[in-house]
Amino acid sequence: MAHSGRHFLQIPGPTNVPDRVLRAMASPTIDHRGSTFAALAREVLDGLKTVFATRGPVVIFPSSGTGAWEAALVNTLAPGEKVLAFEIGEFSRLWAEMAGRLGFDVEVIARDWTGVDPADVEEKLTADRDHRIRAVLVVHNETSTGATTRVPEIRRAIDRARHPALLIVDAVSSLASIELKHDEWGIDVTLSGSQKGLMLPPGLGLHAVSEKALAKAKANGFPRSYWSWEPMLTANTAGFFPYTPATNLLYGLREALQMLADEGLPNVFARHRRLAEATRAAVRALGLEIVCRREDEYSNVLTGVWMPAGHDADAFRKVVLDRFNMSLGSGLGKLKGKAFRIGHLGDFNELMLVGTLGGVEMGLSLSGVPCSPGGVRAAMDHLSNRAI
Amino acid sequence: MAHSGRHFLQIPGPTNVPDRVLRAMASPTIDHRGSTFAALAREVLDGLKTVFATRGPVVIFPSSGTGAWEAALVNTLAPGEKVLAFEIGEFSRLWAEMAGRLGFDVEVIARDWTGVDPADVEEKLTADRDHRIRAVLVVHNETSTGATTRVPEIRRAIDRARHPALLIVDAVSSLASIELKHDEWGIDVTLSGSQKGLMLPPGLGLHAVSEKALAKAKANGFPRSYWSWEPMLTANTAGFFPYTPATNLLYGLREALQMLADEGLPNVFARHRRLAEATRAAVRALGLEIVCRREDEYSNVLTGVWMPAGHDADAFRKVVLDRFNMSLGSGLGKLKGKAFRIGHLGDFNELMLVGTLGGVEMGLSLSGVPCSPGGVRAAMDHLSNRAI
Amino acid sequence: MAHSGRHFLQIPGPTNVPDRVLRAMASPTIDHRGSTFAALAREVLDGLKTVFATRGPVVIFPSSGTGAWEAALVNTLAPGEKVLAFEIGEFSRLWAEMAGRLGFDVEVIARDWTGVDPADVEEKLTADRDHRIRAVLVVHNETSTGATTRVPEIRRAIDRARHPALLIVDAVSSLASIELKHDEWGIDVTLSGSQKGLMLPPGLGLHAVSEKALAKAKANGFPRSYWSWEPMLTANTAGFFPYTPATNLLYGLREALQMLADEGLPNVFARHRRLAEATRAAVRALGLEIVCRREDEYSNVLTGVWMPAGHDADAFRKVVLDRFNMSLGSGLGKLKGKAFRIGHLGDFNELMLVGTLGGVEMGLSLSGVPCSPGGVRAAMDHLSNRAI
Amino acid sequence: MAHSGRHFLQIPGPTNVPDRVLRAMASPTIDHRGSTFAALAREVLDGLKTVFATRGPVVIFPSSGTGAWEAALVNTLAPGEKVLAFEIGEFSRLWAEMAGRLGFDVEVIARDWTGVDPADVEEKLTADRDHRIRAVLVVHNETSTGATTRVPEIRRAIDRARHPALLIVDAVSSLASIELKHDEWGIDVTLSGSQKGLMLPPGLGLHAVSEKALAKAKANGFPRSYWSWEPMLTANTAGFFPYTPATNLLYGLREALQMLADEGLPNVFARHRRLAEATRAAVRALGLEIVCRREDEYSNVLTGVWMPAGHDADAFRKVVLDRFNMSLGSGLGKLKGKAFRIGHLGDFNELMLVGTLGGVEMGLSLSGVPCSPGGVRAAMDHLSNRAI
Repeated sequence: MAHSGRHFLQIPGPTNVPDRVLRAMASPTIDHRGSTFAALAREVLDGLKTVFATRGPVVIFPSSGTGAWEAALVNTLAPGEKVLAFEIGEFSRLWAEMAGRLGFDVEVIARDWTGVDPADVEEKLTADRDHRIRAVLVVHNETSTGATTRVPEIRRAIDRARHPALLIVDAVSSLASIELKHDEWGIDVTLSGSQKGLMLPPGLGLHAVSEKALAKAKANGFPRSYWSWEPMLTANTAGFFPYTPATNLLYGLREALQMLADEGLPNVFARHRRLAEATRAAVRALGLEIVCRREDEYSNVLTGVWMPAGHDADAFRKVVLDRFNMSLGSGLGKLKGKAFRIGHLGDFNELMLVGTLGGVEMGLSLSGVPCSPGGVRAAMDHLSNRAI
Repeated sequence: MAHSGRHFLQIPGPTNVPDRVLRAMASPTIDHRGSTFAALAREVLDGLKTVFATRGPVVIFPSSGTGAWEAALVNTLAPGEKVLAFEIGEFSRLWAEMAGRLGFDVEVIARDWTGVDPADVEEKLTADRDHRIRAVLVVHNETSTGATTRVPEIRRAIDRARHPALLIVDAVSSLASIELKHDEWGIDVTLSGSQKGLMLPPGLGLHAVSEKALAKAKANGFPRSYWSWEPMLTANTAGFFPYTPATNLLYGLREALQMLADEGLPNVFARHRRLAEATRAAVRALGLEIVCRREDEYSNVLTGVWMPAGHDADAFRKVVLDRFNMSLGSGLGKLKGKAFRIGHLGDFNELMLVGTLGGVEMGLSLSGVPCSPGGVRAAMDHLSNRAI
Repeated sequence: MAHSGRHFLQIPGPTNVPDRVLRAMASPTIDHRGSTFAALAREVLDGLKTVFATRGPVVIFPSSGTGAWEAALVNTLAPGEKVLAFEIGEFSRLWAEMAGRLGFDVEVIARDWTGVDPADVEEKLTADRDHRIRAVLVVHNETSTGATTRVPEIRRAIDRARHPALLIVDAVSSLASIELKHDEWGIDVTLSGSQKGLMLPPGLGLHAVSEKALAKAKANGFPRSYWSWEPMLTANTAGFFPYTPATNLLYGLREALQMLADEGLPNVFARHRRLAEATRAAVRALGLEIVCRREDEYSNVLTGVWMPAGHDADAFRKVVLDRFNMSLGSGLGKLKGKAFRIGHLGDFNELMLVGTLGGVEMGLSLSGVPCSPGGVRAAMDHLSNRAI
Repeated sequence: MAHSGRHFLQIPGPTNVPDRVLRAMASPTIDHRGSTFAALAREVLDGLKTVFATRGPVVIFPSSGTGAWEAALVNTLAPGEKVLAFEIGEFSRLWAEMAGRLGFDVEVIARDWTGVDPADVEEKLTADRDHRIRAVLVVHNETSTGATTRVPEIRRAIDRARHPALLIVDAVSSLASIELKHDEWGIDVTLSGSQKGLMLPPGLGLHAVSEKALAKAKANGFPRSYWSWEPMLTANTAGFFPYTPATNLLYGLREALQMLADEGLPNVFARHRRLAEATRAAVRALGLEIVCRREDEYSNVLTGVWMPAGHDADAFRKVVLDRFNMSLGSGLGKLKGKAFRIGHLGDFNELMLVGTLGGVEMGLSLSGVPCSPGGVRAAMDHLSNRAI
């Protein structure tokens, strides 16, 4: 059946791309070796520094966020070196698995439905007397569950352990939505992608890189070429790239960075928090349970919701898609069929959220899932009582 | 303040233009005397016949809907001829005023907050023994109040009066949203515009024309050129226009007609009815009053809502715009400040409506307007209980 | 057959719309009664004043340029008043015909393949002792032949005759391409359209209006509504329109005005002159004859070219379209089949012109039309020898 | 200075992206795990098979063409394995260098201004008795010089040597412009990118893969993840990807594949040949020398042109850019300043070429480079004498 009206893309990324970003991307491709391009490149590289909150270099790969994972590893680690990883959901699991596939020695600590525990980090690093662990891999916002790791506490845990391991943070679904300060938090590599808080289609992998990470990259012998920072940073100084960049996505990036600057990053973060709180109020009022177990780790970009026992989350999602033209996120990995995810990030606002939660509430009702009415009501109470 | 997310354009037109229509309109302009253009012209003229439910000619002017008003009058009436008009709101009042300004002899019957009364028509025409009234001007859907005239009953009233007056119907805000059958209902001129149910930006005025109207136009001496049907219809037979057409809007029209065909007009009408009923359920649950006084004349494209005494509708609308990035329709004419209008037509769906009604409900609350909570809830009950 | 590459739209309008204008037009339609719209309206109205070189009011109609013709007449003339018109080609002929159809008393002076002769104007007005002639209708650039009337000399002719007639100038194909100064040249109504030098799709009719014309409009009794200046100018002061404006074309207009301002109007005019001179050099080198007979009236926006006897211009145009994906202008009216027109206006540059002239030269060769090679060569000599 | 008119992007890639491809790319991003996406993925994967002329699997990476280089190597080679590479220009040199950087044992044979010599291949492989060479790396069209290797003869050379090495072909700048038959020519990996003959912006890396290559990949131990074929092909069977795909580029790819199908690949190749021949006719008529030394290896997608001694190619290119708004390709590597490159591929046609060559000819004249006039003339003779 043909659907009328806007599709509600409420998966936790790719997010709704603003129409002005889409139009910017529809500009004609230009010569990537000319001065017009160089001005564009410098503008987006500078703008990204603000978003990463760094004065150091940033890197843009034509790749998915998965490419940014791989790039962070192969730049900073020599073959077979040891990393400490944390499985707190499907994406952190996949990243650790990738590290293993690339031949690194991966120690994985698993925790369900929370962020990475700073105590785990401190304990492991303290025990690692001879500093075999070269990097700690932390997913800032685990997109499969909706748990946000307290990265500053992770930093302090590493410091307390007086351990030289690099801190590599996956900010794929947090960048430009949840506060993140690459320099201030002492992160060595912050990696991200274009299709979440940056409000772009997928196709760009991003890094912010510390001096320590750069030094390690220069000393490190992992065979690499496409992902290598050095030629990239060298070419970038003149506004160019060592190979053909994804020009039209850079047009979109320029527009999105302008939108973020216009709204102001603190306002952007506050908006994500406000909309996330309203979502959680709705979920609670419906009598459903949030996947993330710690309130201080609730994600402001998505909310994972447990499906009541005896009900299939994917059947519910299909009802919502067919009847209400909305895509919700599926349960991934061991959450398959047992949970669904509501994305509330990116180019998003109060009424889009009310529509989204309305679709969830009506979909639950049509699916025969037992829940209290009043989800949307609770969200609206939150949104209309709170001063902006 | 910079707003994030989609703007909710919930005035009763211009309506939300689907992004695929906007993209179609961004195609390069072509030679309007070439064969590619002729194929486009024939396609949109044919498609419009389906939408008007006519086998007779349709006409496309580069103009607003107001131009289509003027065009209907100057084609069918000689200078100074008498017309019967009905003031049932601001737009019908303006149309009658235009007829007067053009020098026609206008008799106006006023009725508040309803459609045109077929009894009025019958009485007036029956009394007009010498057939001085040459045309009856009826607004199908009065956009300022949200009242839909029962056009088939108007036709029957004319027939009962055995009166030869032409029936000219303004379908600006009803075409492609509310059922309208130009041929079957015996309308002589159905006029409309691009920016409502047709889901286009403003810029096209439209006519469907009966044989009787055409014959009157040929015999009629009003000085006219731009609006003349004859050269238009002659040129149209070959796929051309007597003057430069608004090519890029025709691209958009082709796309919109395809979307309507894909959904199916009966489904389009049913969707508008379903969303309108949900809106009215919400308004009632809020304890507010609908402007239109007759249930059998409720509009399926917009709902006019009375503001409780002591509250200014425009102050409320400003809150909604500033806080929730939604445009609602203002009270027009004597409704200024006393009522607001919710547009629920065009490229619209359930979750857009839930967001819209959420904005109304939260805006009322923030404006201190006394109302019962539960508007959105009532709409959702309607939308989720009803089979599609 | 599917064509690859860009179509060359080298008719003298509609012209090639810049892609950034098309993208601007693809922005979502907004509430035409809101403050965002008002800001847009004021911006384009102000920008148009610069383009018309006037400090007086300008008017934007949702219409074709033909609508602007009609609007100029019905605002300034009472029914049956006399106008002096000049048939110097098909468009000036059609305009005079329209004036007659609207019931005005039209005296037409015909001249072939030139602009309006100031001597004709002076003679006619001087002879009109009792000032029955109320307006002089002059086409600045006759698009069917490529002749540009010397409007300042027309003004002086009227002044020499000490005649109070209004000077109404059709600048449809000259505005923003050939110098025109509404105030300085003492024009009463300058009318134009969107689809030529303004680089937009068709759909907007434009006026610049003198105080004298406005006063005449207020005193004048022609029955009018859609085209009336008074309600338009009143609404415009607040950034609004008396009826729904063609919002998305206004987005395009804003972008196009910005492009003209960026290039600078004097540079725009110089560019048109340079490209026109190169075109004429090419036509002469080919051994073909330019339609316009006076060198000081050559048009800088198009060149009309006589087809050598025994050859059909439309057959040649078809070869060019089929083989080279280029639309050239046909001979209109009595030039049908005997001449073709090369449009070289709007968003146009040197290499587009070289391609255009290449298509003409190759098309002539393929059509077996006798001509000397060397057209493109002559144009390139002109373009590469001249300093910018 | 603000430039008017279309930019001529006549570098040999990225090429002029058709506006309908840009508009397709501006469609809203969708859920990459939903059925609508799966249908898109299957459509583009199928369409690509036609373009590669293969019945085997094709792979789409979110990457530049450089990524496709790396991906071809790491899938088919174990660490340290030997490859035979040919330096016939800058891109083939860079590819060999990349192979070395990734730790492979690279033997490089250098040849100036021609394609790869089949005799070299046969000799080297015949001498490699113990089959240490695991892959032969061949650039089909060397974009830095404009030389097209005769791949079928390379295949025959390998066969004559009865050597099991894989044949890996870089078709970045040849795919969809010059005939290439992955299956028939016995290629093991054909790799390409989106931004040349496929008429898209950069951002997609592409592979067609033989069964033999797949088997080698399964047996091969190079540490890889992002570039791994196996999970990609597994996910692709259901219309999905192992990580987030570059959705909006896939929209563009669908549109571009449709355009290629509409024109017909044989017509596309013939058009490239015709325009390339006209370009070479122009270069010769100007008295300049083509970089490629073998006529049977002339490239149909670009022409490298030697700058006469004493003149700087980059200074000339700057004149062309500043005066005529055209980007030409620079001399790369050892050709820097000594040659320039004219791209004539992708969405291109006769009049665009005439404009392009006009810009070259006028630019040479303005730069004081000694050359005979008549380049454009010669191209036009070629284009207008030849039947389509």
